[in-house]
Amino acid sequence: MLKKVAISIGDTNGVGIQLALENHEIVSKLCTPIYCIDKKLLKTAAKKLNLLIPINFNTFGKYKKTDINPGLVKEDSGLFSYTSFINCISLAKNGKVDAICTLPINKESWSKAGINYVGHTDMLRDIFKQDAIMMLGCEKMFVALFTEHIALKKVPKQIKTKKLVTFLTDFYNAIGKPKNSIAVLGLNPHAGDNGVLGDEEKKIKKAIKIVNKNLKSNFELQVPDIAFTPHIRKKYKYFVAMYHDQGLAPLKALYFEESINISLNLPILRTSVDHGTAFDIAYKKDNNLSNKSYINAIKAAVS
Amino acid sequence: MLKKVAISIGDTNGVGIQLALENHEIVSKLCTPIYCIDKKLLKTAAKKLNLLIPINFNTFGKYKKTDINPGLVKEDSGLFSYTSFINCISLAKNGKVDAICTLPINKESWSKAGINYVGHTDMLRDIFKQDAIMMLGCEKMFVALFTEHIALKKVPKQIKTKKLVTFLTDFYNAIGKPKNSIAVLGLNPHAGDNGVLGDEEKKIKKAIKIVNKNLKSNFELQVPDIAFTPHIRKKYKYFVAMYHDQGLAPLKALYFEESINISLNLPILRTSVDHGTAFDIAYKKDNNLSNKSYINAIKAAVS
Repeated sequence: MLKKVAISIGDTNGVGIQLALENHEIVSKLCTPIYCIDKKLLKTAAKKLNLLIPINFNTFGKYKKTDINPGLVKEDSGLFSYTSFINCISLAKNGKVDAICTLPINKESWSKAGINYVGHTDMLRDIFKQDAIMMLGCEKMFVALFTEHIALKKVPKQIKTKKLVTFLTDFYNAIGKPKNSIAVLGLNPHAGDNGVLGDEEKKIKKAIKIVNKNLKSNFELQVPDIAFTPHIRKKYKYFVAMYHDQGLAPLKALYFEESINISLNLPILRTSVDHGTAFDIAYKKDNNLSNKSYINAIKAAVS
Repeated sequence: MLKKVAISIGDTNGVGIQLALENHEIVSKLCTPIYCIDKKLLKTAAKKLNLLIPINFNTFGKYKKTDINPGLVKEDSGLFSYTSFINCISLAKNGKVDAICTLPINKESWSKAGINYVGHTDMLRDIFKQDAIMMLGCEKMFVALFTEHIALKKVPKQIKTKKLVTFLTDFYNAIGKPKNSIAVLGLNPHAGDNGVLGDEEKKIKKAIKIVNKNLKSNFELQVPDIAFTPHIRKKYKYFVAMYHDQGLAPLKALYFEESINISLNLPILRTSVDHGTAFDIAYKKDNNLSNKSYINAIKAAVS
């Protein structure tokens, strides 16, 4: 039997509803989707998009009245995407679905609606009071982020052996304890060049040693700018980056369209597309909206 | 008439001599090469490599006796590669060649020989007392580094408007004042997200504004993890990265083999391969040594 996936529709002024409608047939073969959106809004959007609503397009949840203003940052669309996500979480918490897949929200719209979370992962962390791990990527390569949405100047102080031991342990368990090697990136150029260009690598090496001993895992320190070259990256499926751009810039350079975002280390599984609301093309005719990330996110949700 | 290029042979225990010998025919069609190596050492190396020395393989310079110890860090090979580079510089300074192309050195060997420079660029900066700009890449994409070999924790403090104005101005002049847009990467995730994730972007934006006004250039701030995605990177040939791994990790993920290193903003032009000594394969039979980076470095030296 197909698994059930709750789909958070995202910002109503972005490409979320179009993605959901256009790909329902493909998605329905991979899972039983439950779309967190109300019927009235769905009809308005479908009309604007000139798309039909499939018969078996199951919706869920109650919502405040929301208008559609393509490409605009609005309070009502912010509140809507938040409520859609909340409804998905309640479905998952109550065992009504096996996983959640989220479509893109707009942070400014959330902020306008008085919602102070930086994003989905941040909100899940607060709701479940657990250190969710943010991992992005595709079948060819996944990157987990040790630090995420913080200023670069705050990153070096976050590199602490104990914290890394916890992170690597949680991560290793969350991805199913693979026996293969996992790359852990250094913080500094040339991974510090034996301390000449920074010494945080000492703490990273210590954490790797402890975790590998405890779990019989195979975490390995790698030089950040070399780790993603063809002959090195083929050795790994998983990479642990010390900070946001260290992992995401190479990942997006290589596999932008097909990448997804997964929240690990939580009581529920949440996957997401790895692109934004695409306000610039939302509700535009013939916008050739790529479904690669969405379909991969659904596949990961049921895997 | 072909331009003259002095070739610094690099560490004698690495792949430098093999690269020079194997590619002399191709290189001779692009320029008139002058190899900074002594005949005796060349003969020993050629014998070890089972390669013939071409008739028109012009050498230059005096050197201390050096042994060949494939793949080993040695004082004599460190001194040799340093002397080879010094001889190239003197040829360039005296107008005997039009440019220098350097093959890889080993920093530890330099250190063993009592040479305290971090590398070629650092040495050129000291010799010419000018702020050389380090740029890496290939025809598809070049990345200039605003900061280079420093610990990550020291980077944020280096982001100063005045320093950036000088850097961008020098860089713009060095690459021939292109009218096309040039990407300047932010320092923080999402380029600071309007100050929420760091505020160094204010200084970067200010510098860009000043330079664009002064020079009528088209520098543009870009979000670091998005800048190298296919649809954004196609808009640019040149990128300015705030730090080493920000620029080099995506560049090497995309164009590792063909990339080269160029020192800009100096009285002489110096290009270099963008790989190391490859000690692991040096002097090994059938090591399939790629010449892409070397040939591209020669092409850039004569361009």
